[in-house]
Amino acid sequence: MFVAMNRFKVKPDATTAFEEIWKSRDSRLHEMKGFREFHLLRGPEREAEGYVLYASHTIWESREDFEAWTKSQNFRDAHKNAGSQGRDIYVGHPEFEGFSVVEGA
Amino acid sequence: MFVAMNRFKVKPDATTAFEEIWKSRDSRLHEMKGFREFHLLRGPEREAEGYVLYASHTIWESREDFEAWTKSQNFRDAHKNAGSQGRDIYVGHPEFEGFSVVEGA
Repeated sequence: MFVAMNRFKVKPDATTAFEEIWKSRDSRLHEMKGFREFHLLRGPEREAEGYVLYASHTIWESREDFEAWTKSQNFRDAHKNAGSQGRDIYVGHPEFEGFSVVEGA
Repeated sequence: MFVAMNRFKVKPDATTAFEEIWKSRDSRLHEMKGFREFHLLRGPEREAEGYVLYASHTIWESREDFEAWTKSQNFRDAHKNAGSQGRDIYVGHPEFEGFSVVEGA
């Protein structure tokens, strides 16, 4: 199991627009080998820093399956519009973190 | 679904000790209402900042189930030894982030 998270810092007045981007997209992740599940998560609001934390949260069978996706046409299609709304929505750039399982089941 | 993550910045030469703490503990999370699954995750190493990122990653039915756990004896028992190894293992304090689902299933 491999957990791929991309962390987004979203301006508080842009959360509806941000969520709409995700709800209206046409995801084809389920076509990929090793894909288990996807959630868009809303985390805490950091008022002092001026953002709401969101994370895309995808569970794969393995890191290799995730990496194969990042090199696929499926990935390029999914990201072709990424960044076009940039400055109005985000504080800084998204930050990717990949996690492998140490313990638990 | 509610995802409770606690992020730990672990000194690179203390990762084995850190993982051992988790592997040797006696978890009773499964006794709690609404508990779905737990994983200890190992994330990226941030060499410039001098740590390896870990995250405890627990999935609950709801935020309410998670909050009930934080007020329980089960929680106090699970944390009674927390912090005793502090300075040798960690860079800074753990950081909690709770996430609710916006989209996905």
